[in-house]
Amino acid sequence: MNTSVTTKELIQLLDQYVTPHKKEVIDNVLAQRTRHLTVVLEDLYHPHNISAVIRTCDCFGVQDLYITQRLHEYDINPNVVRGASKWVTLNKFERQKNTSVVCFEELKSKGYRLVGTTPDRDSVSMEMLDISLKTALVFGTELGGLSEYARDEVEEMVHVPMYGFTESFNISVSAALLLQHLMGRLKTMNLDWGLTDEEKDELKFEWYQRIVKRSDLHLKKFFEERGLSHPINE
Amino acid sequence: MNTSVTTKELIQLLDQYVTPHKKEVIDNVLAQRTRHLTVVLEDLYHPHNISAVIRTCDCFGVQDLYITQRLHEYDINPNVVRGASKWVTLNKFERQKNTSVVCFEELKSKGYRLVGTTPDRDSVSMEMLDISLKTALVFGTELGGLSEYARDEVEEMVHVPMYGFTESFNISVSAALLLQHLMGRLKTMNLDWGLTDEEKDELKFEWYQRIVKRSDLHLKKFFEERGLSHPINE
Repeated sequence: MNTSVTTKELIQLLDQYVTPHKKEVIDNVLAQRTRHLTVVLEDLYHPHNISAVIRTCDCFGVQDLYITQRLHEYDINPNVVRGASKWVTLNKFERQKNTSVVCFEELKSKGYRLVGTTPDRDSVSMEMLDISLKTALVFGTELGGLSEYARDEVEEMVHVPMYGFTESFNISVSAALLLQHLMGRLKTMNLDWGLTDEEKDELKFEWYQRIVKRSDLHLKKFFEERGLSHPINE
Repeated sequence: MNTSVTTKELIQLLDQYVTPHKKEVIDNVLAQRTRHLTVVLEDLYHPHNISAVIRTCDCFGVQDLYITQRLHEYDINPNVVRGASKWVTLNKFERQKNTSVVCFEELKSKGYRLVGTTPDRDSVSMEMLDISLKTALVFGTELGGLSEYARDEVEEMVHVPMYGFTESFNISVSAALLLQHLMGRLKTMNLDWGLTDEEKDELKFEWYQRIVKRSDLHLKKFFEERGLSHPINE
């Protein structure tokens, strides 16, 4: 933002239109959000799976999801995602060459350790995975798994332990099992896994804009009254 | 079986056609199988979900699955189930009135405590669920949840804790999360959660029959040589 208006002031402006119940829900959700763990979906085929993973990220408090789509069209299935895409930050890398390269560079610049997921029992079991550093869990396509590039780039591979004949879980199930276990463990660790106050404010403002009817008009008026141009929702 | 042939003898007969690797896999799987926990799917709509739950049961060692289908057609999706239906015991209650009644009576006669699953946070959290007794986890339809009958019959309701805006997981994800947590906890408890030797033998014989090519011919010959009628695979 180029103006002198702070995010806190904008939150204050919309706050009056948000019910106390919704404010409480938002504060509770924000207190459980993390960017310590993140999920990368590399070129999945089935929109059903992508949508289910978005929903799972929301449920477990994983704020960011990275989606690369080099080959496949990408559409969210509203019945599966159940609105979760409104609350999870989707970082999309679509229809360009080397989507995974661009995506992985961004993750590394943000300090993430890249960990590939696999059904292969020779990899690290999720119970043993070191998550003391920021960790990005990379999921490959339903059939082929990770791309060759991703396989070279990840520092480690992790699997969910299985005790039957079937040698893999469905991707959306696998993501949920990993996040349930890793988020549970993360919360017992002596680590700052939560969002910073600034990150929380940014999300709160974003979510308020989604919740408050015609928030764009309130914001426009606010900026006009101060003789400022409206930097949001252009 | 009305003959004097024991299951052990029949296993012995087919044993020579099973590779050492497959024997080891089967023994490992049997050692992790349980009937202490079981899953009931009440009239699900989507074959996709049923198939995913079958696969999850196999992966976590839950041997029995109860499926009631009063209203909906039921078909396994081979791409989703990935062969798991061969290794999990499917108890189907189909196309009759009161399928849930018949199913629940059978479960109670086997000593199961019925526990309904729900996204409702007012129910017991899975971490707090008492699983010291044999427990059947009942999942209702994707839209309406448990039937009224099931809601009356279950002793308790359980949910998977969630920390986001989305108020429920997809059913196949929810089943996987519950089983991962409860099976993990069960294995730390001082309980005989495994199968009995007789149960293991019965399953081993059943699985050997699936694995060994033309096992029916071997068995037929075996019985004929002993002047016995063939009681299996009629």
